[in-house]
Amino acid sequence: MPSYIAPTKDMQFVLHDVLKVTETGVPGYDELERDFTEAVLDAAGKVSTEVLAPLNTVGDQVGCVMDNGVVRTPEGFKAAFAAMKDGGWTALDCDPEYGGQGMPYVLATAVGEMFVSANMAFNMYQGLTHGAYSAIHAHGTAEQKQTYLPKMVSCDWTGTMNLTEPHCGTDLGMMRTKAEPQDDGSYKITGQKIFISAGEHDLADNIIHLVLAKAPGGGEGTKGISLFIVPKVLVNDDGSLGARNAVSCGKIEEKMGIHGNSTCVMNYDGATGWLLGDLHKGMRAMFTMMNEARLGVGLQGYAVGEAAYQNAVIYAKDRLQGRAVTGAENPSGPADPLIVHPDIRRMLMDQKSFLEGARAFTFWGAHLIDCSRRSDDAAAEGMVSLITPVLKGFLTDKGFETAITAQQVYGGHGYIEEWGMSQFARDARIAMIYEGANGIQALDLVGRKLAQDGGKHVMAFFEMVKTFLKENEGDAALKEGFLDPLKAASKDLQSAAMFFMQNGMKNPNAALAGSYDFMHLFGHVCLGFMWARMGKAAMAALEGGASDTAFYETKIATGRYYMARQLPMTATHLARIQSGADPVMALPAEAF
Amino acid sequence: MPSYIAPTKDMQFVLHDVLKVTETGVPGYDELERDFTEAVLDAAGKVSTEVLAPLNTVGDQVGCVMDNGVVRTPEGFKAAFAAMKDGGWTALDCDPEYGGQGMPYVLATAVGEMFVSANMAFNMYQGLTHGAYSAIHAHGTAEQKQTYLPKMVSCDWTGTMNLTEPHCGTDLGMMRTKAEPQDDGSYKITGQKIFISAGEHDLADNIIHLVLAKAPGGGEGTKGISLFIVPKVLVNDDGSLGARNAVSCGKIEEKMGIHGNSTCVMNYDGATGWLLGDLHKGMRAMFTMMNEARLGVGLQGYAVGEAAYQNAVIYAKDRLQGRAVTGAENPSGPADPLIVHPDIRRMLMDQKSFLEGARAFTFWGAHLIDCSRRSDDAAAEGMVSLITPVLKGFLTDKGFETAITAQQVYGGHGYIEEWGMSQFARDARIAMIYEGANGIQALDLVGRKLAQDGGKHVMAFFEMVKTFLKENEGDAALKEGFLDPLKAASKDLQSAAMFFMQNGMKNPNAALAGSYDFMHLFGHVCLGFMWARMGKAAMAALEGGASDTAFYETKIATGRYYMARQLPMTATHLARIQSGADPVMALPAEAF
Repeated sequence: MPSYIAPTKDMQFVLHDVLKVTETGVPGYDELERDFTEAVLDAAGKVSTEVLAPLNTVGDQVGCVMDNGVVRTPEGFKAAFAAMKDGGWTALDCDPEYGGQGMPYVLATAVGEMFVSANMAFNMYQGLTHGAYSAIHAHGTAEQKQTYLPKMVSCDWTGTMNLTEPHCGTDLGMMRTKAEPQDDGSYKITGQKIFISAGEHDLADNIIHLVLAKAPGGGEGTKGISLFIVPKVLVNDDGSLGARNAVSCGKIEEKMGIHGNSTCVMNYDGATGWLLGDLHKGMRAMFTMMNEARLGVGLQGYAVGEAAYQNAVIYAKDRLQGRAVTGAENPSGPADPLIVHPDIRRMLMDQKSFLEGARAFTFWGAHLIDCSRRSDDAAAEGMVSLITPVLKGFLTDKGFETAITAQQVYGGHGYIEEWGMSQFARDARIAMIYEGANGIQALDLVGRKLAQDGGKHVMAFFEMVKTFLKENEGDAALKEGFLDPLKAASKDLQSAAMFFMQNGMKNPNAALAGSYDFMHLFGHVCLGFMWARMGKAAMAALEGGASDTAFYETKIATGRYYMARQLPMTATHLARIQSGADPVMALPAEAF
Repeated sequence: MPSYIAPTKDMQFVLHDVLKVTETGVPGYDELERDFTEAVLDAAGKVSTEVLAPLNTVGDQVGCVMDNGVVRTPEGFKAAFAAMKDGGWTALDCDPEYGGQGMPYVLATAVGEMFVSANMAFNMYQGLTHGAYSAIHAHGTAEQKQTYLPKMVSCDWTGTMNLTEPHCGTDLGMMRTKAEPQDDGSYKITGQKIFISAGEHDLADNIIHLVLAKAPGGGEGTKGISLFIVPKVLVNDDGSLGARNAVSCGKIEEKMGIHGNSTCVMNYDGATGWLLGDLHKGMRAMFTMMNEARLGVGLQGYAVGEAAYQNAVIYAKDRLQGRAVTGAENPSGPADPLIVHPDIRRMLMDQKSFLEGARAFTFWGAHLIDCSRRSDDAAAEGMVSLITPVLKGFLTDKGFETAITAQQVYGGHGYIEEWGMSQFARDARIAMIYEGANGIQALDLVGRKLAQDGGKHVMAFFEMVKTFLKENEGDAALKEGFLDPLKAASKDLQSAAMFFMQNGMKNPNAALAGSYDFMHLFGHVCLGFMWARMGKAAMAALEGGASDTAFYETKIATGRYYMARQLPMTATHLARIQSGADPVMALPAEAF
């Protein structure tokens, strides 16, 4: 069975050596002393290793079962969920007014990475609750907040997001679910929603569904859509649970992975719901949560990859097979461990250098979200809005690739279910699809975010990289391994953006045909930038006389690998982008 | 449920317009007239669509079941297997002396692609039989051939290959299975083999296991290994079936995919076996089959991708979602079909351009195998030996990527099992692992094949590409879209080979750290070369007044896509290779 140990030290490095969170002056951040975050991360790591990881395999193999409309989670999930609640983990970054602990989102993100690595499917029950909590917190009335939030912060009640219908996923304008206003101010919700994660289960007394539906008078397309709170069990005025609402789970889907999470078809048969936020502005309310939700999915992508990587390392050290080409390294044994072989090293370095870069990128994104929320930093909000599709699309594509590479290290043993590597690959796959398939992320990036606010945010991004390069240009140790490759990659990104500006206006397809490559090109520049910052921080620590030299030297070598072996991809992405729309759009549809 | 239609026309194009098989002068090829191959391919396509494809989903969802040592294949497999036998499909390229039809391997390869696309797991039962047939055909005594081959050609008896043991897969020198010589000339085989595809099942009266084992006196490592024929049921002198041999299936593995094929743990408890080929030269006997077996796995990689692609096209044309950015293309409908969107096009073109290139590459490889077998063409044998690891490694990596991309076109519907796209991804995954994991293919290519016979074969490859470029340099229509990119990519490949020559002698790790990238770089050059040839053939057909202009124009546009959007990868692979061993090997093992 696979194991998981939380990479606390790596997280601490990002929080304190790179992002320097305690010194940023963001309200709430002054608590984030090194000792404090270490204590929180250690405790979360213990829960991850001891409570969550051991349930990952059973979650996959047994999965959720539906019987007479009742969905049962796999054995052990209930007790583990109770442990999460008791430990206060569900409330970490929630509002103290409703029972939360008020910690910054960046710390919740670090803890979240651990929980996802240990058991992605399990963690979705509370992850979706957190999303629904955020929506009600941002858009709910005082009464709605008081009714739902304390129970959702504690996860006594869980939450869901209901967007997709059988005939529409991305294109929500075609939505058919209807909301009919009632005299008492409530609505009757009627329609079918699909792919509803955690839609029905046995972990909570109530499930608070947030449902997009069309109310009369809103007009065509997405303009007519509103957001509604539809509890599984109606809540009495005194807060106690009342009658069962007219919402039911039609079936749970058989799917490729995340079997421990129930993916439900939800039927709303005149269910009672209450408007959340403004009428006919449901899309806008939903989008408020988008940055956070998409960062969370990007995190899933690499967090599952991290768990897969850890097990690949163990196997590569244990499994004896073949001899090092430069001479036996385990001469007394029947063979050398796999890790001596250069191609095994390549696989491990690909994984390691991506994962640590992805973590820094994600924590930076979470930090920006904190800045924008806690100090109304418009520049931070603009920046996170720009990088959100990159966080989601690039990290989930590469996270899946990481899981596949980790599986490959196991050879045939990676393909059978016994070792658990197949599960990591199957689980990681969904992150490329849900919360906006990655092609939609690329469209969002190129079609919307690049030009947002007059292109201000992408210019700020380039300026930030340029400033970093300039500030450090005299640093000879950093130059060849880090600054030069970052400079080249950043230039490729600027050339690509320039190509879109020059060609996109007369032919939007010229930009959109290159959107996916642009998202990946952007991702590589972000990770390259993160590695340059990490390289600098590691060198500074060594110069400052840090005792754990091996840790910092490993950081530098891992960063150099990323710069030397991954960043060259930017040239290929640029070449594809510059080939324009013609190769992509040449064929008529009937030629396929 | 997914569907499959055999791409007969595309295959005919490769066989006749590109490889010009009828005119090559290879014995046996003169039968391969256009009409004849079309008739064979049409018939095979009918079987694929009507018999095999409908069983693909049940094969996955029900899988093989073991009960009291008896393995049952999914419902419908028996009848389909009988249909394959009755149709003579199992005997297509087998020796007429043993009941085969004596067709060239290239035709069997085309038919094989269809069968694999339609139902990979099912086709493995006969595929493995064919491998065992080939081994006995090449190394068996006259008596062994007479005893086993007719039954294996008809698939009344099936075959297996037994190499892997729990503690050794790649490193067969550590093998523990023993063969003790008996007075009657037979051997007693004792040991355990794992991951034995089609090791036990209910489709045949007998199963002929080919087993690698160590017989006394052979010395250490792989030198002591011999190959044995171990039938499940012993065969009497008159050819009738006798007693059950002491071989049994210990369990069948739960695995990520190919559930319709039984993957068995096989226990040999003093089972009776007979030496196949020379004593202590089992590895050599096994390797005789290697080119064919590895080409067969490379074929699996792209053939499953082809099936996935076909379904992605159907979905992209059917599913209405969003509007074309350049204006509605289905204005009377609620939305436009997915296929109008540039990023969907990119995904389809990535798949299409890879698949058609992969097919040409594979058929070319099969043609070389025919040349080397049917006319003792040493140059052809050298060339196929060189490209075999590329066929296996590159095509399975890219084939899996193709299946993943096809799945992505479906959005959330791709992740649930209902639509069958998950199965394609899960099935395609194994091809990257078995028959030598792809890292081993890269090692074989760089560590062995490049320098084989003094580097003669790789020089011949470069010469062949150079000659093609020179012969066509005056062709303006071919130049920009095809010849220029091929020239640049081929130059990158030569630079990479040069880097290995200059650095590999003093540090073998410098070559091995780049081996995987070299395999992919080589693969892109091969597909680029194939596309240049296909582009030329398509232009020639148009100039010759071919009536189906749309078909040939589509070929040219698809080829241009590959050259413009895929070939730029060679620069990135070269950059990685030239970064050498240092980034890859920098860390001590304990730093992971």
